[in-house]
Amino acid sequence: MIYLDNSATTKPYPEVLDTFRKVAESHFANPSSIHGKGSEAERLLLQARSIVADLLHVHSKEIVFTSGGTEGNNLAIKGTAFQHQSRGKHLITTAVEHASTLESFKQLEDIGFEVTYLPVDAAGRISMEDLRKEVRKDTILVSMIHVNNEIGTIQPIEEAGEYLRNFPKAVFHVDHVQGLSKVPLNFKKAKVDLCTMSAHKVHGLKGSGILYVRSGVKLFPLFTGGEQEGTVRAGTENVPGVVAMAKALRVVLEKSKSGIKQLRHLQETARKELCEIDGILINTPEQNSAPHILNFSVPRIKPEVLIHTLEEEGIYISTKSACSSKAQGGSRILEAAGYGPERSEHALRVSFSFENRQDDIERLVEALEEVLPKLKSVMG
Amino acid sequence: MIYLDNSATTKPYPEVLDTFRKVAESHFANPSSIHGKGSEAERLLLQARSIVADLLHVHSKEIVFTSGGTEGNNLAIKGTAFQHQSRGKHLITTAVEHASTLESFKQLEDIGFEVTYLPVDAAGRISMEDLRKEVRKDTILVSMIHVNNEIGTIQPIEEAGEYLRNFPKAVFHVDHVQGLSKVPLNFKKAKVDLCTMSAHKVHGLKGSGILYVRSGVKLFPLFTGGEQEGTVRAGTENVPGVVAMAKALRVVLEKSKSGIKQLRHLQETARKELCEIDGILINTPEQNSAPHILNFSVPRIKPEVLIHTLEEEGIYISTKSACSSKAQGGSRILEAAGYGPERSEHALRVSFSFENRQDDIERLVEALEEVLPKLKSVMG
Ligand SMILES: Cc1ncc(COP(=O)(O)O)c(C=O)c1O
Ligand SMILES: Cc1ncc(COP(=O)(O)O)c(C=O)c1O
Repeated sequence: MIYLDNSATTKPYPEVLDTFRKVAESHFANPSSIHGKGSEAERLLLQARSIVADLLHVHSKEIVFTSGGTEGNNLAIKGTAFQHQSRGKHLITTAVEHASTLESFKQLEDIGFEVTYLPVDAAGRISMEDLRKEVRKDTILVSMIHVNNEIGTIQPIEEAGEYLRNFPKAVFHVDHVQGLSKVPLNFKKAKVDLCTMSAHKVHGLKGSGILYVRSGVKLFPLFTGGEQEGTVRAGTENVPGVVAMAKALRVVLEKSKSGIKQLRHLQETARKELCEIDGILINTPEQNSAPHILNFSVPRIKPEVLIHTLEEEGIYISTKSACSSKAQGGSRILEAAGYGPERSEHALRVSFSFENRQDDIERLVEALEEVLPKLKSVMG
Repeated sequence: MIYLDNSATTKPYPEVLDTFRKVAESHFANPSSIHGKGSEAERLLLQARSIVADLLHVHSKEIVFTSGGTEGNNLAIKGTAFQHQSRGKHLITTAVEHASTLESFKQLEDIGFEVTYLPVDAAGRISMEDLRKEVRKDTILVSMIHVNNEIGTIQPIEEAGEYLRNFPKAVFHVDHVQGLSKVPLNFKKAKVDLCTMSAHKVHGLKGSGILYVRSGVKLFPLFTGGEQEGTVRAGTENVPGVVAMAKALRVVLEKSKSGIKQLRHLQETARKELCEIDGILINTPEQNSAPHILNFSVPRIKPEVLIHTLEEEGIYISTKSACSSKAQGGSRILEAAGYGPERSEHALRVSFSFENRQDDIERLVEALEEVLPKLKSVMG
């Protein structure tokens, strides 16, 4: 199997699964229980929190464990909006967010918040000028995706963070789900207040994620109850999932330096070779884009047909983001970047992990070279 | 190890762990991905949903997978309040709810909802008379715990559901986290609209839960984003966790019939023997209580001291509910039932699973008989 759908989800590392099992089996107690087995589980949780904090160069108390990226984005966005609505009801985001961010803002609009969606250029990037124009005194939140999950565009997080220092009432949230381990981001340097991450995108397990909450930043909790996670996120902690996530994070970040180089190399090869195939148009910009995503369009050929044809060769790629892949219509990201329907309805995404090799790209290119002419002739 | 803290959490069954690993390893794709590996994961998810629905005698579409009981309660309560606030802002619950329910209502009170907390009698039970008195035309939600997690009291869910048929605008939510597999509840017969369950209380894994949402009942989603879980709960599905939960549910429900008898037997033995120990006062009522919980007070002896002393004998029991076990003060459940501070500050809980045996009770009783006189003499 040549798995090139790593932006949708990644294969858990075997050592992550081993860790999960060991903890779930031997340290199953509730970390809130006051007996020794509870304390053991609590110690593991504290240890995982401290490992994660160290790896992300933040404080343990700034780490909130969640059930994933969708929860992180929802908690950051709604948690900020509900917490600070008396200060102002203006929110800013971009036109190229993940569904979990977009739909959070849509829901807030429905209940009386005002949302500005920053437009993007042909590369899918916002301009700092637009951001500067839109931030107001009553802006309580600016939420921005770091690395776009469909086309890989990187937003100017550091510049945005720097500018937002002038607006201490505007909370700055970053969706770092696709960036983690692939496009470094120093939360402190970029003046990020809230930052969403998800374990299953970095070879951890589904059902676990991290929300970085800068010390001093207050959220209206979506889950109230016990005093877990500093009362920002109640619920019996998923200790095995969290310890497994800390493990996954450690492993991917260890691989990160050489891994990024390798991803860049795979991406460059793929870009060069796909460019040469008749009928393929590359959508991922060359500048300011992540190394693990390459998005391209094949006009006239239904993307699902191409995906299933490649699948017969054991190659797995995707259309838009997984969670909207079954929705009708073109990619709203490509549309926002100004592409017409033909190009945005025929987009495909290959996304690599540190485990992919040059060989996988060769096989993909060969397969495309072989099947595209056939599919085209079928389409007439 | 004699583990008698099963109301806090249970040990995952080995077959549950095996299932988790197999799915996480071999079916790791995103169920929303349109390629074959995605469809495989989606099929597993559908299958799990259908198994769970069958086991609970409801429809597949009525099953929403969550991250646990706290999420289920929060989604049911806030999701109903936010969805129907234009109809009315009056909510009803009881004085003996789990923290995840209580704190949800407290949060709603803070933002303008009116909440009635039904009082309970000495057994921790509400009266139907009180409920009848309090339901109004603008009541949009009645939320009730089925089995109390501290003392095991069973609330009159069927009667309440029957009565609430007269108030079609009042949504009826039940917290069935402690009841599942131990105190049967037929959701349809009891006219329940929303019902919360959690995997880790029935030998499943932490981080997974179920919210039953009766067909036609609408919720304001706390997590918006992708179209997962009928758009009531966005987020990449935790497929391994869900499949493992279906497995756990199947196994516990298979054991349930004989298991409940056995629990009842353990509880009766424990009650009888503990009653005879000088200084022990039983708090769990004899009537209308679950078979797996026995709560008792040992006045004058600090519960933490007793817990750590028992631990030295390899016996694990708890004080109040795990998630509030570190909070100061007495049990608010026992206080609500009218017990004074001495009794409510010195409460202990033993909670059984189907895996406990008569022997475990003998050992507990022996240990208590041995340590209590010593501790008392130390306390003077
Ligand atoms: C950029 C981005 N944000 C958020 C999410 C949501 O994360 P999760 O799948 O953990 O809910 C995803 C992936 O689905 C994503 O790619
Ligand atoms: C009655 C009751 N409701 C809700 C919960 C919360 O469930 P979870 O631990 O899955 O968040 C618990 C247990 O903690 C409980 O006992």
